[in-house]
Amino acid sequence: MIALPAKIADLDTPALLIDLDIMERNLRRMADYTAEHGLRLRPHTKTHKIPALARQQIDLGAVGLTIAKVGEAAVMLAADPPDLLLAYPIVGKRKLDRLMEVAKRAPVTVSLDSLTVARELSEAAAAAQIEIGALAEIDVGLGRVGVQPSDAADLARNIAQLPSLRFEGIAFYPGHIKTLDDEGRRALAALSTLLSGVVRDLKQAGLPPRIVSGGSTPTMFHSHEVAEMNEIRPGTYIFNDRNTVFSGACAWEDCAASILATVVSTAKPGQMIIDGGSKTFSSDRPVNNDVGFGRLINAPAAVFTKMNEEHGFIDIHSVDESFSVGDRVRIIPNHVCVAMNLHEWVYGVRGNSVEQAWRVEGRGKLQ
Amino acid sequence: MIALPAKIADLDTPALLIDLDIMERNLRRMADYTAEHGLRLRPHTKTHKIPALARQQIDLGAVGLTIAKVGEAAVMLAADPPDLLLAYPIVGKRKLDRLMEVAKRAPVTVSLDSLTVARELSEAAAAAQIEIGALAEIDVGLGRVGVQPSDAADLARNIAQLPSLRFEGIAFYPGHIKTLDDEGRRALAALSTLLSGVVRDLKQAGLPPRIVSGGSTPTMFHSHEVAEMNEIRPGTYIFNDRNTVFSGACAWEDCAASILATVVSTAKPGQMIIDGGSKTFSSDRPVNNDVGFGRLINAPAAVFTKMNEEHGFIDIHSVDESFSVGDRVRIIPNHVCVAMNLHEWVYGVRGNSVEQAWRVEGRGKLQ
Repeated sequence: MIALPAKIADLDTPALLIDLDIMERNLRRMADYTAEHGLRLRPHTKTHKIPALARQQIDLGAVGLTIAKVGEAAVMLAADPPDLLLAYPIVGKRKLDRLMEVAKRAPVTVSLDSLTVARELSEAAAAAQIEIGALAEIDVGLGRVGVQPSDAADLARNIAQLPSLRFEGIAFYPGHIKTLDDEGRRALAALSTLLSGVVRDLKQAGLPPRIVSGGSTPTMFHSHEVAEMNEIRPGTYIFNDRNTVFSGACAWEDCAASILATVVSTAKPGQMIIDGGSKTFSSDRPVNNDVGFGRLINAPAAVFTKMNEEHGFIDIHSVDESFSVGDRVRIIPNHVCVAMNLHEWVYGVRGNSVEQAWRVEGRGKLQ
Repeated sequence: MIALPAKIADLDTPALLIDLDIMERNLRRMADYTAEHGLRLRPHTKTHKIPALARQQIDLGAVGLTIAKVGEAAVMLAADPPDLLLAYPIVGKRKLDRLMEVAKRAPVTVSLDSLTVARELSEAAAAAQIEIGALAEIDVGLGRVGVQPSDAADLARNIAQLPSLRFEGIAFYPGHIKTLDDEGRRALAALSTLLSGVVRDLKQAGLPPRIVSGGSTPTMFHSHEVAEMNEIRPGTYIFNDRNTVFSGACAWEDCAASILATVVSTAKPGQMIIDGGSKTFSSDRPVNNDVGFGRLINAPAAVFTKMNEEHGFIDIHSVDESFSVGDRVRIIPNHVCVAMNLHEWVYGVRGNSVEQAWRVEGRGKLQ
């Protein structure tokens, strides 16, 4: 543990703050939404990377957790999860050996898109005498991982024939839908048609999917409109960020995470330099064509124009108030998942009080 | 410590590799260059973040180490440095208290650009009964931190009058010079003129600078051409990266750091997905107008077009060889300093052998 000051004013900077009122509201909203629509909720833990927060998600009804890397899965065992989905093709003997160690402690499912990965997983599971769930990953438009929808039944058949693998259904990520404008709504409707076809193919192959797992942040509260999908894996909803607002999926008031920073130089007129740059916020740019690396909560007219590793450049020409060295600002980052990954500790706050410090235990688990 | 496999082929991925032959050549080249020209070398440790490598720099003649954050300074005490320069305005009581703890164990100098910072530092130093060196930071064209050159003597006078501060000279960072084309050479010549004026002003004020500290990666081997400058603080030179090549300051053969990654999906024709994205490489883009997030050492025609957190998208349309799931590639990152900050461990390799694992101890020290 670290020494925990009682007030935000006593925290050193830069520091990542989580507004607990907002976070708890975000968690409840998603739990209520998925319960109302009978959707399984398997939150992606890449956003918070903290077992204690994963536990809160499970306590609110999540059926399991989603993870990308085996190292993250090992960390999330501390949340005592009912189930772990590795939504990532796990390749290579070292990773598979480590995954089997995890699978001895919690049920594990892997989504995959190639026979190579399925065979290696099957062999590792057989050697460890464990059964592993498998989802056939389908590319629904992003062009990242996943077989074409017309090949889903073939992949499913291959999975189902392999020893120690249990075919569970399909997984996909509609990351090509950036916002629910007219084009986005058409893409969402097309997704329904596509999934209906895949599920029909699977049923004809004698492999009806128990799980049809998808969802994305921009579409998160429209998941019930997608035919056949019965599980979603949202991550960002716990905190939200500037990109979530830009996608139309939340309001500024729903952003729970901000970075507290200190003004360290005002030498150049119309500009201030803060003590956080790409090592604190990440270099991720806005998903839309907007500029800037964050939104100053109390001075939204300020423009966070540029970053070096430790310097944030804030243009304050359009801001009414003036700033001095030592002043503090709170900034909503573009992409909270990568920002969390840069912080060793984050702080849960309510009003001006610091209630909690969490070590970001899943940080930097690249393997 | 972690288990260290003997061969690169046995490392799990993604992993950051340091080619030791190249690194050692880079270290010697800079040591020889600065010795030849009588320049003080105070390497910026932000690039490697590893005390054992800082120690190698000191053993090769570095007069001290450069650091941005107090947390990094504390880590670098393990290198037993002759001197630590915090090239960053240190603001706030908590940071100053921590800095004084560091200063009890090694001589400390701070570069600063405001009377506010100078006064707070003076008070903290007086309370701790320690003398701290101070450099007046000057803006030579980047527009980041630093007073205008015409105000340097005023700032120096203010520093010199404050108790427990020792005026040591000036610091600057010519980050506005991106490459030494004709425009860059003119800017370098202008820098000489500017510094000559500042040094003349300081002498007239009775405050001749003992240290005139500058330098940047693009200009590193032209530092001797800059009038009055007697110290440089290069960081990236130990490893170099894609941006160093683009700046003209090194060749591809001088890049010591690469990220070993595994192909995890080839589902989309003409593309492969590797097991590292923005959480492994950082989202930093090229400094020039080039595209891409890294250079595949063995397939330079491949284009690393896009990243998500855990997925790297590599366009292989222009590549002759084919790739399969499980194949491995080595990729030179755009910006090695931020990439190092994302890795918990990095590996020193020679040929196909793994000689060394280093924990990146200065990683994530934001405060």
